[in-house]
Amino acid sequence: MSVDSFHTSGTSPAFARPRQPCRIALLGFGTVGSAIAARLAGCDPVDGLELTHILDRRAFLKRDAVAERHAFGVMPPLHRSITWTSRFDDILATDVDIIVEAICGIEPAAEWIRAALLAGKSVVTANKQVIAHHGPALLALAERQGRQLRFEATVGGAMPIVRAVSDGLAGDRLTRIVGVLNGTCTAVLSRMETTGCTLAEAVVDAKRRGYAEVDPSTDLDGVDARAKLAILCALGFRLRVDPARIETRSIARLQPTELDRVRRRGGTIRQLAFAEYDPARSALTAWVAPAVVPRSSLFGRTAGAQNAALVTGEHAGEIGVLGVGAGGSATAVAAIGDLLTIARDRAAIVPAPVLSAPGFIIGLDRGTHIVDFMEQPARSADPLAEAV
Amino acid sequence: MSVDSFHTSGTSPAFARPRQPCRIALLGFGTVGSAIAARLAGCDPVDGLELTHILDRRAFLKRDAVAERHAFGVMPPLHRSITWTSRFDDILATDVDIIVEAICGIEPAAEWIRAALLAGKSVVTANKQVIAHHGPALLALAERQGRQLRFEATVGGAMPIVRAVSDGLAGDRLTRIVGVLNGTCTAVLSRMETTGCTLAEAVVDAKRRGYAEVDPSTDLDGVDARAKLAILCALGFRLRVDPARIETRSIARLQPTELDRVRRRGGTIRQLAFAEYDPARSALTAWVAPAVVPRSSLFGRTAGAQNAALVTGEHAGEIGVLGVGAGGSATAVAAIGDLLTIARDRAAIVPAPVLSAPGFIIGLDRGTHIVDFMEQPARSADPLAEAV
Repeated sequence: MSVDSFHTSGTSPAFARPRQPCRIALLGFGTVGSAIAARLAGCDPVDGLELTHILDRRAFLKRDAVAERHAFGVMPPLHRSITWTSRFDDILATDVDIIVEAICGIEPAAEWIRAALLAGKSVVTANKQVIAHHGPALLALAERQGRQLRFEATVGGAMPIVRAVSDGLAGDRLTRIVGVLNGTCTAVLSRMETTGCTLAEAVVDAKRRGYAEVDPSTDLDGVDARAKLAILCALGFRLRVDPARIETRSIARLQPTELDRVRRRGGTIRQLAFAEYDPARSALTAWVAPAVVPRSSLFGRTAGAQNAALVTGEHAGEIGVLGVGAGGSATAVAAIGDLLTIARDRAAIVPAPVLSAPGFIIGLDRGTHIVDFMEQPARSADPLAEAV
Repeated sequence: MSVDSFHTSGTSPAFARPRQPCRIALLGFGTVGSAIAARLAGCDPVDGLELTHILDRRAFLKRDAVAERHAFGVMPPLHRSITWTSRFDDILATDVDIIVEAICGIEPAAEWIRAALLAGKSVVTANKQVIAHHGPALLALAERQGRQLRFEATVGGAMPIVRAVSDGLAGDRLTRIVGVLNGTCTAVLSRMETTGCTLAEAVVDAKRRGYAEVDPSTDLDGVDARAKLAILCALGFRLRVDPARIETRSIARLQPTELDRVRRRGGTIRQLAFAEYDPARSALTAWVAPAVVPRSSLFGRTAGAQNAALVTGEHAGEIGVLGVGAGGSATAVAAIGDLLTIARDRAAIVPAPVLSAPGFIIGLDRGTHIVDFMEQPARSADPLAEAV
């Protein structure tokens, strides 16, 4: 090996690395969108990322509101050079490199992501319903287009569970994924636990703290968590699971007396999302329900808007991840991490996962309203009964 | 946008994706190396990865030992097509795509990694001393060569902390990284705690379980953990820190009576690695020492060979990661995750981090032998005193 090989071997992409920042358009200026904008175009911007366009249904109202709040010192100044619009076609016609999708609901979000990829843009999304329902098709499209579709922000806020399951634990064969994946439920249940208040009172408190939507039923009934669980099943087990086929039990009718009874046993109640796959039988067990867990466990100790997840692999045993799972700042951290990953290597190859359907999906017994991991440790979930 | 754009825009790397498996050479057939080999060439191989060469100082002895153990059914069969050698030049002359380095000590490992990159190979390493001391130079070389150097296995075993800090939390500005990063110490301390035995007895037990080396002083004295902490400082704070400048206190002289006293206060002792960076003052506080933590905290509840880390960001607050941090299987999961990342996109651009030196490094007060987070919560570490 001569000194020459130092200079000649390899493809030396360092010298070809583009120096100009990635141009970014943001779709949606709600809680998550405005947090991302504040990070990208505030007083302490992120190197290499430049926010150039913002789309919102009420673009001009919001632009003026930001200007006003800035005048009152409430909001970091957003660059004046940002173009605001309410028409998606305006965004599509720009030369932005990446589109960040932070709107609510499946449509038009899914259609816009599709159009963005077709136009040669990469996409970062925080929209769990879109990824849970259309992720496989959109990821296949992204691969065909040589572009990237990243979605760390869809599960667990800043907690890097999407990356952990899809990359970090790719070297294992995952058998189980269990998590507290809905920050609103954690906030409500931990509030009931510490104050003895009713669920309705805890929901009011969660709304005041910005942890709950105007209509919290999607969170309480498990519709939010099961979309996240479907995403993790795709990443961790390579299974295509329609979220609607994941059984849920609501926490909406939980009484303070129930929590109190559980507390006297050293436990607490959390909304758990549970998935376990047995490839030999092609059987997926999956559900979202209130569950009794030891107060000292990883799940029992979540509070506020915290999320936590335990991923079990054949070779590595249990890996746990925890962190703030909701709110603008936490979700913005995940989205900006994705933006930086794309900016670092815009031509990266990200193969879409090849998914299969599970033979059958097992839910909960008809009579079960709360899963009790303390009284009768479920066969498959015994480690949860320990203080992990 | 016409239907045509579906087929024509983008670079369509899917169709160019190489179909033949990545060819891999393994350096070192110790605990970690043999676990990786068993995964890659055992009865349940990993798609897309093909182990073709194994280097070991005692290659032929080990090859025969494997064959014998296989005959007795102890070891999964390793493919007969693997070439064994004790000469690194033999490896360099092959057409392997990736070299996995799993030997001990800095030399010749660092020199071999350098030579491998110069020869156009990508490298996966489990060698924390090499990355802590030579990581920046080797990563810069990898970038120049258009190759990858990955090292998830250097910190925390299967716990995906390297990825979490370098990618997942890239969207935040990290301020503190605290962890239980040495599985041997956790095994020794949790054994003393549960049985009341002496440290010497706990070390004997840890060796029996495969958690401790013949000479455990590198682990007990903090030399292992400070190398890992230096790696995390580079990834999380973009700081170049010589591990030797991180102050350490050994756990080797801990008495059972001390643990007992702490236990009566609801606490326990763990070897903690602590780093906090204040960019305004360019001040890094960094140390590895035995620390009193609440038994119910994330750190206090680690047992066996578990590791745990809490990473604090300006925007996302605290993110926790935990998992088995030592042993062949767990480390193999991390290395194989790295191999799959490289195999997925062999031309990926991975810029070497641009590091600066901290203005000054703050260690521990001269009189401190155990840091007590319960008695006098350190200014900077208060959240540790809570049950995270």
